[in-house]
Amino acid sequence: MTPGSLPRPPQVVAVGGGHGLARALSALRLLGNEPTAVITVADDGGSSGRLRADLGIIALGDLRRALLTLARNRELAGVMAHRFHRGQLQGHALGNLMLLALAERSGMDFVTALTVAGHLLGCAGRVLPSTTEPVRLMATVAGREVSGQARVTKAIGRVERVWLEPASPRACSEAVAAMADADIVVLGPGSLFTSIIAALLVPGLRTALTTSAARVVYVGNLLTQPGETAGLDAPAHVRALLDHVPGLALHAVILHEGPPPAGPGEPIVGDLNGAALSLGTRVIRADLAAREPDGSVGAGHDPERLARALGAIVRDTARDTAPDNHATPPARPDDASVAP
Amino acid sequence: MTPGSLPRPPQVVAVGGGHGLARALSALRLLGNEPTAVITVADDGGSSGRLRADLGIIALGDLRRALLTLARNRELAGVMAHRFHRGQLQGHALGNLMLLALAERSGMDFVTALTVAGHLLGCAGRVLPSTTEPVRLMATVAGREVSGQARVTKAIGRVERVWLEPASPRACSEAVAAMADADIVVLGPGSLFTSIIAALLVPGLRTALTTSAARVVYVGNLLTQPGETAGLDAPAHVRALLDHVPGLALHAVILHEGPPPAGPGEPIVGDLNGAALSLGTRVIRADLAAREPDGSVGAGHDPERLARALGAIVRDTARDTAPDNHATPPARPDDASVAP
Repeated sequence: MTPGSLPRPPQVVAVGGGHGLARALSALRLLGNEPTAVITVADDGGSSGRLRADLGIIALGDLRRALLTLARNRELAGVMAHRFHRGQLQGHALGNLMLLALAERSGMDFVTALTVAGHLLGCAGRVLPSTTEPVRLMATVAGREVSGQARVTKAIGRVERVWLEPASPRACSEAVAAMADADIVVLGPGSLFTSIIAALLVPGLRTALTTSAARVVYVGNLLTQPGETAGLDAPAHVRALLDHVPGLALHAVILHEGPPPAGPGEPIVGDLNGAALSLGTRVIRADLAAREPDGSVGAGHDPERLARALGAIVRDTARDTAPDNHATPPARPDDASVAP
Repeated sequence: MTPGSLPRPPQVVAVGGGHGLARALSALRLLGNEPTAVITVADDGGSSGRLRADLGIIALGDLRRALLTLARNRELAGVMAHRFHRGQLQGHALGNLMLLALAERSGMDFVTALTVAGHLLGCAGRVLPSTTEPVRLMATVAGREVSGQARVTKAIGRVERVWLEPASPRACSEAVAAMADADIVVLGPGSLFTSIIAALLVPGLRTALTTSAARVVYVGNLLTQPGETAGLDAPAHVRALLDHVPGLALHAVILHEGPPPAGPGEPIVGDLNGAALSLGTRVIRADLAAREPDGSVGAGHDPERLARALGAIVRDTARDTAPDNHATPPARPDDASVAP
C-alpha cells in the first residue's frame, strides 16, 4: 500500500425493499459500512399505493423505510416513521408525505428528493430507487395472471414468473453507477418475488448487476412467505432468482440454520449443493433469527447475527481489493491509492 | 452590576398570527432576541381549516409559520413550508402535517409537538398556542353575527365585537408563564381582530398580559384590511384593542409613516394624541414598509425597519431591568444576578 493511503472500505449495495432489507442495512451499519440501498418501487399497497393511485408516482414506502434505517438523526426519523391514526390522512406515513413534498419542490425528481432527505436525516449511506418510472408488478400465479404487487403478495398458489409493466423502465442512473462501482451486492433478505426480483426486473439494473465485478451475496429468508413462496425450498429460491436474473453469479448464499423463528410460514429446507449454483459459491449457514427480550425466537433477521455472517465477506473483500494485494488485479485501476 | 454577571437579555413575547407576526419575529431575530411567539389558533381556513374539520384540532398554520420564521435549519424549514400542488393533499402545508404527526406521537399534546418541532428546526425562540382547545372566532359585523375566522376576515362591514366559542378556553399554561415573565410584549403587526385580538380573547392570557410588568408595544398595520378594518383610523385600531383587552396599558405604539405600501387597503390615518392612550404611551412613527428589489414600496413590514423601531425599546428595557439600575425596582426579585 502507498504510505499514507488507506484501503477504500468496500462499497456495498443492498437490493430489495421492505422490512427485510432494513435488517440488511442495519447489519451493514453495524459493520461500519455506509451502504447504498437500491429499492423496488413497484409497491401499490398501503400509503404508497394511495399516493400512487392519486398522483401516478413511484412507491415511496420502502424508500422511506431504508432512509430511516440509515438515519443518524433519530428524532427526525421518529417523526417521519409516524403513521397517522385518524382522519383523511389515516395510514399515511409522514415520511412518505415529506418525500413527496421534496419531490414536488424539485420538479418531481425523486433522486434529488432522496438526497435532500438523506441530508436532513444525516443518513450513513444512500437510498436510490430501482427506477424513477412508475411500474406495476405482474405475475403468473398458478397459471393465472395477477396484476399489482399487493395482489401478487396475497395470491394463493405458486408464483411462476414476475415481470414489470412497462417491461423496460429506465433504470435510475445513480443506482446503475452504484452497482457498477460496488465491491459487494447484498440481495435481501426480503420477499423473493415482490422485493428482490422486483428491483432486479429493471433491465439496466439487471445488466449492471450481472456485469459488475461485485461479489453478490443472497441472504435467504428465515421462513417461506404464505402466498408468495409457500412450499419453496432453498434450491427453488435460488432457481427463481437465477431464472429472473440470467447470468447472475452468486459469491455466497447466507441461510438461517437454527431454531425456527416466529411468524407465519415454514422453515426453508433443502441442500444447496446442487446444480443451481456456480462453482465456488459459498454457502454460509448461521443462526440469523432475532430474539425477543425473553430469549424466545422473534420475527425477522437479527441485525447483529446477520452482521456476523456478512462480516467475513466484507473483510475478505476489503483484503482482496486492497491496493497492495498483487495476487488480485485492482478492481479500480483509476483508484488514486493504487500502488505503482 | 455584580462583576462577572451579565444582564439577562429582555424576554420578548410576540402575540398574533399570520404573515404580520412573522415580520415581528424576524425583526426581533435581527435584534439578536430569541422571542416567544404566542399564536392564535382560531383559524378555520385553508389547510388548517381542513385539518380542523377532519380532526377537531387547533389551527396549525400560524404556528407553523412562526416556527419556520425562527428556524435556523433552513433546509428543513424549506421542506416544511412546502404546500402540495396536486392530488388529495393539494393545499396542505407539509409543516402542518408534521406538527400533526408530532402531536399524535405525544397523545395530541401540541405544546410538546411544538417543542420537538422547534428542536428539529433549531428554532431561536419558542412558539406556543394561545390555547390548546379548539376554538371558533365569532363576530358581530355591521350588526350581523358571523361565525368562523375565515368568514369574519371576509365579511363586509365594520367588525364591532369578536369573541370565542367556547368563550373561556383554557390558556396554554406555558404561554401564560411566558407572558408573566416577559419584559416586552409585542402585539402585531397583523390582522387586528382575527390575529391579535383573537389570541388575547383567551381569558387566562388576557389576564397574564394586563397583570404582567412587561412593556406592551402595539405595532400597527401599514394599511387597513378590506373586510376587517376598512375605514378604521389609528385611534379606532387602538380603541378596538383596548375595548377587547380592558386594563391594557400600552407602553408604545409603532406606526408607519412614509410612502403608502402596495396591496389592497388604505393608509391608516389619524392622530393618536387622544384619550384612548394612557399617559406616557410613546408613539413612534417610522417608515416601516418593505421595499422591492427595484426600490418600490412592497407589501408588509420590512423586518430591518421594524427592528430599528423596536430596537430602542428593547435597549431601553435591557437598561431599565439591568440589576445595577437602582432607579427601577428589579422586575425579578429572584433574579440571581441582582446586586446586593
